[in-house]
Formats: sequence, structure tokens, C-alpha cells
Amino acid sequence: MESIGIVTPQTLRFTEPLAMQNGSSLSDYELVVETYGELNAARSNAVLVCHALNASHHVAGIYADNPKDVGWWDNMVGPGKPLDTNRFFVIGVNNLGSCFGSTGPMSIDASTGKPYGASFPVVTVEDWVNAQARLADRFGIERFAAVMGGSLGGMQALAWSMMYPERVAHCIVVASTPKLSAQNIAFNETARSAILSDPDFHGGDYYAHGVKPRRGLRVARMIGHITYLSDDDMASKFGRALRRAEGALDAYNFNFDVEFEVESYLRYQADKFAEYFDANTYLLITRALDYFDPAKAFDGDLTKALANTSAKYLVTSFTTDWRFAPARSREIVKALLDNKRTVSYAEIDAPHGHDAFLLDDARYHNLMRAYYDRIATEVGA
Amino acid sequence: MESIGIVTPQTLRFTEPLAMQNGSSLSDYELVVETYGELNAARSNAVLVCHALNASHHVAGIYADNPKDVGWWDNMVGPGKPLDTNRFFVIGVNNLGSCFGSTGPMSIDASTGKPYGASFPVVTVEDWVNAQARLADRFGIERFAAVMGGSLGGMQALAWSMMYPERVAHCIVVASTPKLSAQNIAFNETARSAILSDPDFHGGDYYAHGVKPRRGLRVARMIGHITYLSDDDMASKFGRALRRAEGALDAYNFNFDVEFEVESYLRYQADKFAEYFDANTYLLITRALDYFDPAKAFDGDLTKALANTSAKYLVTSFTTDWRFAPARSREIVKALLDNKRTVSYAEIDAPHGHDAFLLDDARYHNLMRAYYDRIATEVGA
Repeated sequence: MESIGIVTPQTLRFTEPLAMQNGSSLSDYELVVETYGELNAARSNAVLVCHALNASHHVAGIYADNPKDVGWWDNMVGPGKPLDTNRFFVIGVNNLGSCFGSTGPMSIDASTGKPYGASFPVVTVEDWVNAQARLADRFGIERFAAVMGGSLGGMQALAWSMMYPERVAHCIVVASTPKLSAQNIAFNETARSAILSDPDFHGGDYYAHGVKPRRGLRVARMIGHITYLSDDDMASKFGRALRRAEGALDAYNFNFDVEFEVESYLRYQADKFAEYFDANTYLLITRALDYFDPAKAFDGDLTKALANTSAKYLVTSFTTDWRFAPARSREIVKALLDNKRTVSYAEIDAPHGHDAFLLDDARYHNLMRAYYDRIATEVGA
Repeated sequence: MESIGIVTPQTLRFTEPLAMQNGSSLSDYELVVETYGELNAARSNAVLVCHALNASHHVAGIYADNPKDVGWWDNMVGPGKPLDTNRFFVIGVNNLGSCFGSTGPMSIDASTGKPYGASFPVVTVEDWVNAQARLADRFGIERFAAVMGGSLGGMQALAWSMMYPERVAHCIVVASTPKLSAQNIAFNETARSAILSDPDFHGGDYYAHGVKPRRGLRVARMIGHITYLSDDDMASKFGRALRRAEGALDAYNFNFDVEFEVESYLRYQADKFAEYFDANTYLLITRALDYFDPAKAFDGDLTKALANTSAKYLVTSFTTDWRFAPARSREIVKALLDNKRTVSYAEIDAPHGHDAFLLDDARYHNLMRAYYDRIATEVGA
């Protein structure tokens, strides 16, 4: 299997106002997308891939000017890959509020001539889905062969199947949950506190000050990373190994600098993230995670929330994922079965925690391949 | 059962230099202690209670000038309580480096006339045990009926049984671990990063600036709290309940202020902690946790590390403790059994996560009561 090769993002402009769940609206906005493969004549082979917290429209392939910038789900999407771009037309889209090109806090608000900053509306999963639906209209896609996502992306796929049931043939929800737990929210709140209290945050309008709240972003990323990996995976990757030059004494330094390998890893990830990610986007996207709770409007009854769906579902979880544990996926499966929906469920025995959904695991990818084979047959892809 | 009532801490001064594991030494230092009950004529009924991260010598009772300041293990220690002060002489001691009166970063370094700040030596569990041994000498206690502690306190109890085997009749290790996992270290490193990067930290010498790194302490405390509670416990305590005035609409506010009850709880705990706790102490104590690894000097073989022990052991864990899970306690038990030590092990089915060791759970307390009954018989208490 080869990568899809060089890809080119495109920016689409939308000028009809988008009503947001928080009561405001965006008068016009841009979405950055990438597409892979060819839309067939029947327009029946389109798959929408929704991204999670820190990803983007760049799902697969590389950029001509930066061949190291490989799409975040390149192992899943491409010619001959589980989601085979020789058969499917795949769309990756950067969500509103993100910091990779679509309209977000860093964008200029035409009404003020300044970046939105803290004034960007608090977006929700449902807002994203509405924007994605307009994107589908733009491509002339009435019905997706599949809407697919992992983690927060899985929430979007689930929301699609509820908000636009007639437009989703298959809904593929990976390593996700019907709502965050108190512990999930607590981790988000802690990360947000680090950002909000960073003196360089300036109430969200740090762009004007020529700074960014790097300290807060660093801590937020470290918290995130811990929750993405399993305890066992961290143990096998790092254990208690000390960060030492080859041949150096395996003894403690007795200070607060990097002492253990796991500290070095976290600091490296944190530094990298603080450079490329936008703090306002971090706040918005973690809040979208917190708020997602489709059962809320149905007295907490997920079965009722899913009553109007008509897609077929594939729900997948990973045994060592403690961020969104298998039990959370099983809640979705149960509610779907209560509604007599067609649902496949796979609980993949994988050691890599929440991050497993991004990794190249044979059982996981074989499952996805088989499922997309079935979709291809159904939709004539 | 009543509380032990009004108690009074005392400060003991030590003037013989204490050699520290990091190679430095403290030329003189003070330890603040509280004692409860009476030392019997045979000096055979003494129990040392070791504290965890943010606790102190104030184990039980209240202060005359502050009756709301109840000792942190008041439900365990007192007349008629599991550790019955009618029979035992109990010592609570604030550890070196802490911020509740014993010599630590806030204390004046006689050689400079300024607070130690960042120059306070990086203390270890073993350093604390050595200081506690001198404290025992001061009280004329050759051998403790028991050394007991939970979490980091359990590490001290375990270290006592290895470093001074002849001085510990019973070693009671609650909700602890023989060493931190990579994930445990990662949480500590994240908390430390929040403190170290707070502009008000000033390299640890913030006292001179009349500030303290409250932002960092807040985030550190929030991270801590999440790891002390179980996911289930957070779910039942807070769930996804919104923080709302009575009768207010159960709808989102779409902002980054307190929205969920769990956020309100975390912020309250964080604010409180940032006022009373010292940031340098937080760094030191989390590092002591990271460094504790008695098997390290034995090629990682805990069985060998425990070969010279002679105490009898009670090891206790809690099913929902994911910070120091039961499996970590079982490592200790296995290594003790390999050495043919007398060891009792209890895994208490409790919903409260790591914090369970501080709570009044009937099965847990009955176990402790029964075990102390046995000790009382053995030592003539």
C-alpha cells in the first residue's frame, strides 16, 4: 500500500449565515478541505472523515512543499487502504473554530477588522455538522456512503446520523462516547485553566500582543497526552527509565529538570504543540467535547435521542482506552439496538489506549477494510 | 467514638547534621509533631503515622484556636477509634520540606538569613525516614509497635521496614505502591510544569517578591484531585450536572466560566490549595514520590529489596484506586511472601478511588481495628 501522495487543500467560502447553537451566527466563513479519490457519477461513494481535537482536513497524503507533513489518518485512507480512495471519494474538512485554515479565532472578523479572538462563537459538534452539511451540498453530495470519525470525530459522525439521518448510509464511530464523563470534563477544565490563567492569554486577544499563552498550552498538551495513552503503554514505552547520555550513571540528579524519559517525551510534545496550536481553538474544541450530549434534550435517554436515525452503524472501541472506555461505546450500541438499528460492534484488544484509533493495528484495519468492502458493494463504489 | 479533642503541636529542634540522599546535609532542622495517647512504661505501644503529599503532623483532634481544623486522619486515630489512643501512643510528624512548620523551603536558612526557597535539598522518602528515626530516639522509642501510612505515607512505612527493620514490629501500608509508574510520574511532571512555568515562581524564590505561583498551584491541585477520585465516584458526585441557581434553566451558557458542577468543585479546591500550600513543597514532595523505588538498588528486584525486613505487614488497597491500583499493592505482597514474611492483604471494595484511604469505610476501619487489636495483644498495649 502506498500513500496517496501529494495532496492540495482547497478553501471554500460560504456566504449564507450559519446559525450557531449558542444563539449567534457566522455571517460568512471559510472551510478548508482536502479530497481524495473521485466522486462517482451516481455521487454515491462519498465518505466524510471528521477530525478530533488537534487534527485537521489533512487526513491523508503529503504536501508538495513539506513531504514530512503526512495526513493524520494516512494509514487508514489511501489507495488500497481500509478506506480505499480507488473506490471512495473522501473528504477531510477542518472544523470551524480550528486553527488550520477554516474560520476560527485567528481569522479576521470582517465587522471589526481584527482577529475574532475571544469573540469567536462557542461552537458545538452540532454546529460543525451543520457546516459540514453545507459542504456536502457544495459537492453535490446528497447522501454520504459513510460519515466516519474517531474520538471527537466519532461524536460528529453520531450527530450526523441524528441530525441528517437521510444523508448518512453508514455511521462509523471509533473510540468515542455519547457524552463526556465528569472525569473527562475535569481534565478539560484543568487544561483550560492552565490556558486561561496564563498571563500571555490576555483574555483571548493575545494576537494583538504578539504573544501566545505557551505555558498554558504546554500544560494542556501534557494533560492530553497522558489521557491518550494507556498506563500499560506508558509503562512499556518509558517505564521508569532515566533520561541519560549513553554510558552515564543510572542515578538520580535530584532536581526538577528532565530526569525520566517520560518527562522528556511530555516536554517535547508540549513544546511542539505550543508552537503550532492556537489556544483559543483549544478552549473551543474542549468545550465542544464537554457540551456534546445528544441525549440531554431527551431527559438523558440516548435511545430516544437515536430514535430518528436510519443509518447502519459500526462502533469500535479499544480495550485500554480509559479516556473513552469500551463501556462508553457499548452505551451507543445498546441505544441503537434498542431502536433495532443495524449495528456492528468491535472491541479491539489493543495496548495503546485512546491513541489506538490512529495507529496501524491489523485487527482494527482488517475490520475497517471489511466494513468498507461491504459499503462499496451496497453503494456501488 | 469521640474525637481526641484539643491537641497542641510541639516543635523539636535537631542540631546534629542530617546527611541527605542527594549528597547534601541539613546542619540543623526542626520537626513539628503531635502526639496522642500515652507512651507506656515499656515504651512498646508507639505508632508512627506518616503523611502523604499535602497533609501534616496534624493527624487527629482539633486546635483550641481553630476547632474546624480537624486532623486529616481523625476518623482513624483517637479514643475508641481503629488506632485507639487509649491504648497506643501515636506520633504525627510533619516531614522535612513540607510547609506546615517543619524545616522546609519557607524556613530561614541560617547560613544566608533568607528562606531556603529553591536551595532546599531535594528530599527523599529515605531522608524523611532517617529524620523520623531521630525523632523516635528523642522520644526514647527503640521499636515502634507500628509504622503506618497511606499513599506516600505508605512508602515511608515500607522504607522504615527496610531501613530500620529492628525498629518496626508492624508495617501498615495503605493505598500505596513500591514505585510510581510512568503515568504517575507524568501527572507529577505536568503539575510541576504548571508551577515551574508560572511567572510568579521566580525560580523558587518567590518569597522575596511577595507573591506565590498561585496559577501553577491551582492547576497542580486540579490534576491531583482528578487522580485521587475514581471515574465512577466523580460520576456519582457530579455527573454532568450544571452549576445553576435553583430554578434556573438547565441549559448551557456557552462560555468558559464554570458550567458544570465538577468544574466548580475543582476551582474551589484549587483556590483553597493555592492559598495554604507552598509551591516549593509541592515540587519537593512530588519528586520524592517519583524517586521512591527501593528495588532500584537491587536491579529492580523488590523481593531482594525486602530481604532484610523483619516486620509483620498489613497491606491494604482499594478496588477503584487508579492512582495506586491494587495490582501495585499486590507487588509488595508478592515480594514479601517470596521472603516468607508474615503479611496480611486486604483489597477493599470501595468506590472512592485513591481518597478511600482517608474515608470512614466500615470494612476498612473494621480491618484496621482488628489488626491493631492484634498488635495491642502482641506488644502489651
